[in-house]
Amino acid sequence: MHLSKLFIPILKDLPSEAKIKSHQLMLRTGMIKQSAAGIYSWLPLGFKIMKKIESIVREEQNSIGAQELLMPTIQSSEIWKESGRYEDYGEEMLRIKDRQGREMLYGPTNEELITDIFRTSVKSYKSLPQILYHIQWKFRDEIRPRFGVMRCREFYMKDAYSFDVNDEQARNSYNKMFYSYIKTFNRLGLKAIPMAADTGPIGGDLSHEFIILAETGESHIYADKSILEINLNKYEASDKSLEEMRKDFSSIYAVTDEKFKSDEFNKFVKKENQLKTKGIEVGHIFYFSDKYSKPLNCLIDNKGGSKTPVCMGSYGIGISRLVGATIEANYNNEIMKWPKSIAPFDVVIIVNISKNNKENLEKAEKVYKELKKQNIDVLLDDVDENMSNKFKKHDLIGIPYQIIIGSKTEQNKYEFKELKSKIQILSLDNIKSQLKK
Amino acid sequence: MHLSKLFIPILKDLPSEAKIKSHQLMLRTGMIKQSAAGIYSWLPLGFKIMKKIESIVREEQNSIGAQELLMPTIQSSEIWKESGRYEDYGEEMLRIKDRQGREMLYGPTNEELITDIFRTSVKSYKSLPQILYHIQWKFRDEIRPRFGVMRCREFYMKDAYSFDVNDEQARNSYNKMFYSYIKTFNRLGLKAIPMAADTGPIGGDLSHEFIILAETGESHIYADKSILEINLNKYEASDKSLEEMRKDFSSIYAVTDEKFKSDEFNKFVKKENQLKTKGIEVGHIFYFSDKYSKPLNCLIDNKGGSKTPVCMGSYGIGISRLVGATIEANYNNEIMKWPKSIAPFDVVIIVNISKNNKENLEKAEKVYKELKKQNIDVLLDDVDENMSNKFKKHDLIGIPYQIIIGSKTEQNKYEFKELKSKIQILSLDNIKSQLKK
Repeated sequence: MHLSKLFIPILKDLPSEAKIKSHQLMLRTGMIKQSAAGIYSWLPLGFKIMKKIESIVREEQNSIGAQELLMPTIQSSEIWKESGRYEDYGEEMLRIKDRQGREMLYGPTNEELITDIFRTSVKSYKSLPQILYHIQWKFRDEIRPRFGVMRCREFYMKDAYSFDVNDEQARNSYNKMFYSYIKTFNRLGLKAIPMAADTGPIGGDLSHEFIILAETGESHIYADKSILEINLNKYEASDKSLEEMRKDFSSIYAVTDEKFKSDEFNKFVKKENQLKTKGIEVGHIFYFSDKYSKPLNCLIDNKGGSKTPVCMGSYGIGISRLVGATIEANYNNEIMKWPKSIAPFDVVIIVNISKNNKENLEKAEKVYKELKKQNIDVLLDDVDENMSNKFKKHDLIGIPYQIIIGSKTEQNKYEFKELKSKIQILSLDNIKSQLKK
Repeated sequence: MHLSKLFIPILKDLPSEAKIKSHQLMLRTGMIKQSAAGIYSWLPLGFKIMKKIESIVREEQNSIGAQELLMPTIQSSEIWKESGRYEDYGEEMLRIKDRQGREMLYGPTNEELITDIFRTSVKSYKSLPQILYHIQWKFRDEIRPRFGVMRCREFYMKDAYSFDVNDEQARNSYNKMFYSYIKTFNRLGLKAIPMAADTGPIGGDLSHEFIILAETGESHIYADKSILEINLNKYEASDKSLEEMRKDFSSIYAVTDEKFKSDEFNKFVKKENQLKTKGIEVGHIFYFSDKYSKPLNCLIDNKGGSKTPVCMGSYGIGISRLVGATIEANYNNEIMKWPKSIAPFDVVIIVNISKNNKENLEKAEKVYKELKKQNIDVLLDDVDENMSNKFKKHDLIGIPYQIIIGSKTEQNKYEFKELKSKIQILSLDNIKSQLKK
C-alpha cells in the first residue's frame, strides 16, 4: 500500500475532546471517526488493527474447541422477560419498538439468546460439553460515553458460552477458557493479570476479570509481581493440569482497589514484589450454573435419565476496547509501537522525496516490490512532506519497523530501524530475515 | 471436525413455516435459527459458509483497490435530515430513541454516513479516485419478512462507495466495480446477469442489478443466452478495456419483467438463444453523481482551484442473501451441492458404525488424520446412525465430496464420491490429489 492512496485522515492538532491518550492517538492517526456520541466508524488503519486482534481471539477460541456462530444484534424482549433481566437492565439497554409495535432491543450481551438456541437444539448429556461463541457488535447506552473506544456505546465483543452437565465439568470449561484468555493476551503483547471479581448483573459465584497493566488505567491494582512470571507452558490441556494452573494463579496476591486491604498486601507480598499500578479490564469470565438455564427451561437428559438444567458460564473479551487498551499500554513519550502480531503493517518505507530527483522514490519502489514478493505487508510513505514531519507521523502510526531511504542510502544498503531502537545499516536480505523472524 | 461434536441441530421434519427451498434447507441442516420475525442466528454450518462468501467478496473488492473500513450499525438521524431521506425512507427504517431522547436509527444503507466521513477527511482532487467499502449488518423493517434469509430484516451486506472528481472518472469507477462483481459471482459458482435497472430510493441515472439464475427466483428474466458466455479474461484492468466490457454486456438483450416487451425480445434475440427463466437479485450498483455530496456539502478542490461536489456511486452485495440464493440455484431433487469455493467442508468421511466392531471407525480416524495433515478441511461423520440416513443427511448438508468407509472398504482403497456423480474406488493418494485440484 502507498500512503498517498491510503484513506488515513491524519490530524495535525491534538483533538480537544479527547482526554486520554488512546482516544487522542486514534483520532490523530485517523483510526476512527466519531459519528454520534459514543459511536465510531473504524477507518482503514483502525479497522485493520481491530481485525488482527479479532483473528487472534478467534484462533485461541477455536483451539480450545469452541465453535463460532453469530447471533443477531437485534433481539426480542420476550426471552429477557423470561430470564427476568428485561426490567433489571435499566436504561443502559437500548430499547426499540419495531413498526408492528413489538418490543425489541439491541443486545448488550447474549446469555438469554444463546440459552434459547441451546434449549431447542440439544437434549442429551451425550452432546456435552459444548462451548459456543460469537464476535458481534453490542450496544450499551452509557449515560456519559467517553474515552473513545474505551467507553463507547456500540462496541465489538467476543462472547462465549459453555454448557456442561454438572458443576465439576463446568469448572473444567471455565479453566479452559481461563487458559485461553491468558494465551490470547500474551499473543497480543499484553501482560494480563486475572483477578477474582464480583459478578455484577451477569450473576454467579465464580468470576475473573483480566486486567492489563497500563498507568492510565481506570482500576487500581495491587499484586505480587510473580503472577506475571507464571509460565503457561508448564500446563497441558488436561482438566487436571488446568485446574492446577488456576490454583497457581489464585494462590498469588492480585486485587483491584475494591478488595484491597493494606495490611493483607504487606502480609502476603514481599516488599520487593509489591506491584502497585493501574490497569484496564479487557476480559471478564463468569460461571453462573443454572442462573439462565433454569428460568429459560434449558434442560438436558442426564445419565440417570432425569432432566436437569444445563450448567453455564459466559466469557467476554472486548475487541474494540483492546485496540484502545493496547495503545494505553504501549504509547509513551509521543511514540506508539504496535506489537508485531497486530501491527497495521509489518514495515514502512520512509522515503525522502525531492522534486527534482526521483532517484529515492525509484529505489523505494524497488524495495517495496521486493518485500511484497516475500508476502511482507509493507507501507510506502510516498507523500511529499519533509522527513522530520514524516518521522513524527510514523512515531504515531506505530508500524514497528522502518526502512529509511534518503541521501545517505548507499548501494544495496539501507537504514533500518526498529521503533525505539537505533538505526542499523543492513542489506535488503538482512532486512527481510529480520522482518520474517 | 467430528460430526458428533459439531453444533448442528438437524431437523427430521420439513419445517412448515418455510415456503421456499433455501429456507427449508437452512432450517433442516441447522444453518440458521430464527430468533424473531425476520431475524436469524447463524449457527456454525451456516456461519462458516457465509464467512467464505464474505472472504471472496472482500478479496475481489481489495483487488480493484477498494479500501475496507467499518461504519457502525446505529446512526444519528441528523445526516439523514441533511440528505432529505429521513422522512422519505418510511417505515422500513428502524427508528430508535436513545436514553437522552436523541433520534437514532439502525442503518439500512450508508450513503449519508460515508459522505460525512469523506467530507471531513478529503479536500483535494489529488486524493481521488477513492473507493471505500464495509461489510456490516443492516436493518430494514420489512412489513412481512419471509423466505428466511432472502427477505429478512437484519441482513449482512457489503456496500462500497466511489468518490471521483468528475463524471467521466466516476464512470470508470463504476465499470471497475461492475467487473469485480461479475468476477465475484463467478468465483461463487453462480451465473450472474447484469441488467440495467431503475434506481429507486438510492437515486441517480445509471444502475445495474446483478441477477443469478434460479427457477425459484422472484424476478422473471428474459435474456439472450450469449450474455452468459462473455469471457472476462478478454478485458484488462484499464479504463478503456472496462468501458468496452460494459458496452459488450449492454449490447446483449437482458431485462426483467418490468422492462420486458415481447416484440422486442423476438426482434433482438434469436429463437434458439431466448432464455426465459427466473432469477434472484444479489447485487445492485448505482451511479448518482452529486445526489448526496451536494446537500451534504462534500466538496473538493478541483484542478482549477474551485470547489465542486464529489461524484459518487454506491455498490451493494447481499452477503447473507447470497447464502440463500446459492441454495436456490443449486438445490434440486433433495440434493444440495455447495460450490467448492464456499463449501462448509472440503470432504466428509461417512463411516458405517456397528457396535461390536470398531474397525471402520479406526480406519476413518486414520484417513481423517491423513487429510488434516494436508490442510484439507474434513468432516468425520462418527454419529451412530444407519448408512441410509447418513447419506440422506449428507445430500442436504451438501459437502461436495464423500469418502465412504464400510464393509466394502478394501485395504488402502476407498469409495470416493463427488455428489451427483458415481462412486470411484481410489487410493488415499488419489483422493488427496482430487481434493486439492
